[in-house]
Amino acid sequence: MSSCPIDTSVIRPIRFVAGQCQMLDQRLLPAEEIWHNYKTAEEVAEAIRTMVVRGAPAIGVAAAIGAWFGARDIEAATADAFYAEFEAICAMLAATRPTAVNLTWALERMKRFAHANLDRSVLELKIGLEYEALAITQEDEAINRKMGQHGQPLLSDGMRVLTHCNAGALATAGYGTALGVIRAAVEAGKKISVLADETRPFVQGARLTAWELKKDNIPVTLICDNMAGYLMSKGEIDAVIVGADRIAANGDVANKIGTYTVAILAREHGIPFYVAAPVSTIDLSLSDGSQIPIEERDSREITHVRDIQLAPEGIAVKNPAFDVTPNRLVTAIITENGVAEGNYQERLYTLVTMR
Amino acid sequence: MSSCPIDTSVIRPIRFVAGQCQMLDQRLLPAEEIWHNYKTAEEVAEAIRTMVVRGAPAIGVAAAIGAWFGARDIEAATADAFYAEFEAICAMLAATRPTAVNLTWALERMKRFAHANLDRSVLELKIGLEYEALAITQEDEAINRKMGQHGQPLLSDGMRVLTHCNAGALATAGYGTALGVIRAAVEAGKKISVLADETRPFVQGARLTAWELKKDNIPVTLICDNMAGYLMSKGEIDAVIVGADRIAANGDVANKIGTYTVAILAREHGIPFYVAAPVSTIDLSLSDGSQIPIEERDSREITHVRDIQLAPEGIAVKNPAFDVTPNRLVTAIITENGVAEGNYQERLYTLVTMR
Repeated sequence: MSSCPIDTSVIRPIRFVAGQCQMLDQRLLPAEEIWHNYKTAEEVAEAIRTMVVRGAPAIGVAAAIGAWFGARDIEAATADAFYAEFEAICAMLAATRPTAVNLTWALERMKRFAHANLDRSVLELKIGLEYEALAITQEDEAINRKMGQHGQPLLSDGMRVLTHCNAGALATAGYGTALGVIRAAVEAGKKISVLADETRPFVQGARLTAWELKKDNIPVTLICDNMAGYLMSKGEIDAVIVGADRIAANGDVANKIGTYTVAILAREHGIPFYVAAPVSTIDLSLSDGSQIPIEERDSREITHVRDIQLAPEGIAVKNPAFDVTPNRLVTAIITENGVAEGNYQERLYTLVTMR
Repeated sequence: MSSCPIDTSVIRPIRFVAGQCQMLDQRLLPAEEIWHNYKTAEEVAEAIRTMVVRGAPAIGVAAAIGAWFGARDIEAATADAFYAEFEAICAMLAATRPTAVNLTWALERMKRFAHANLDRSVLELKIGLEYEALAITQEDEAINRKMGQHGQPLLSDGMRVLTHCNAGALATAGYGTALGVIRAAVEAGKKISVLADETRPFVQGARLTAWELKKDNIPVTLICDNMAGYLMSKGEIDAVIVGADRIAANGDVANKIGTYTVAILAREHGIPFYVAAPVSTIDLSLSDGSQIPIEERDSREITHVRDIQLAPEGIAVKNPAFDVTPNRLVTAIITENGVAEGNYQERLYTLVTMR
């Protein structure tokens, strides 16, 4: 038992047991902490699709693990035959969710590894891909800790920080992106209190952000999404920090639906709006955010909470899962390689290509 | 049976049966349509407090009915003794909810009636107060229809109109304020489609607005509160119309939490933002919105949906039920006496004092 009020290494939504992975079922939090076992690529794909695991970096990690499991089950005789099957598995995993680019990034990295080692035996390829998936998992948490170091100077002692959705330990292999910056500020001795938007319809703020910050003894107050403007107008919010699912080359940010509204409110009230994300979230192939695909999810996420019906039978519903915040509303983008401010085009390119 | 696609006289949340009133339990909609009986002032007060009935005009109507029931039960021998007890009953009813001024307005009107008739017998006073409560109820719907006539020219054929919370038939004696303007536009032959914000935490948009517009065959699409900004950025919203719980002399508007955010989003995207409310909502005694009391409601409204726990045990919560939209964000205020635009100070005074 540690007497330290914050043991930020506690929460990790993905763990390994005897050649399988276990994932914390984030749909059941905070009422229940249930772990499921996964041992095939298809099972992992289903977990991503149904949001057992969610959050752009965590989806990337899960996809890498899924690719490893898929590789393990391939029964090809030659490396080339193996690679053809492996590509198909990666394509299946990539199709689970369209918006987060970390998913594609992790799968591309796995494919690149395989492709670079096609002169090896199938057995060696399988073992190599296992190492690569584990490296992606471990690096993710290390990246978040670096992001925290780069970002925490932006948060001052006493700040009341609004966050939207969950960009925490649960959205990553551990520590978190936006919440990682908050954790780093707290570890640096600053008193930070957090306001968590509940984040309808999936309620990641209430269920996940509130849960993990409470576990870490970081003061957190829950509000509904429609209350942030009012609290800003009362001077009760000093900064906003969120994660990202994809960032275009010009700094436009796709993130959980509602982020754009929070960014407009922040600017209206003269409050800084920060985005924290690993460079794997930055998609230099897209010149701006209009090219980012926005996932539309099932209407039942809005019309029902479990079996409770909130809306009339058969009502029409729109359920976009993400929105795009234009770069002009973003005060800074915090990555593991440094902070981008001002000319995002140039600076993001530098951060992404940095070794 | 009428073959008219819109029979806007159908939905009335308060009805009278044999000296009692019945109210539709709006907490159970849309899954169940349950009517409760009320025959005392205390019962009506509890219905207002627990939001069986809600919406500023409907609260005013219910309070008037509660005052009538209270008057009926007074056992005083003289008119003066009766009046003292009646005042106490009105004070009890006035304390049920702090933000909507229609509540105070209706009770003041009932007291004024009693006070003007103190030369009558106690029996005559009781009968007079019954007539007054019934008049307030009937006038409310008539007022909304006039409001609709004044407001509907602001909505053009084909418009996609966003509304927040429920300012409909269910929030009034019938027809609605904001939704009354939409109904009037539809009756004038315009094709209007509505986007309904679900309006957390009480979900009046999903449960009530969607329900009553669907009943009237007015096309309605449900979204979460945090999606309006995204849809505006995509050019999918042409106008916003909401109700009000209290309007200050300068045109600052208190309405359901989240209204302020929608108003900022509307201005950011160049979309008109209309408020529809009877003149009984206008409180000339308050020079601006900062003086309007904002009700803070129970945290359980946010942490739970019925018995389903959405947030960790013991989490801190803020639950302001209303916010204030400054007059600069309001394109026009629609009342039964006409439309106010521009200099609200002068124009609202004129509309309120108009005969």
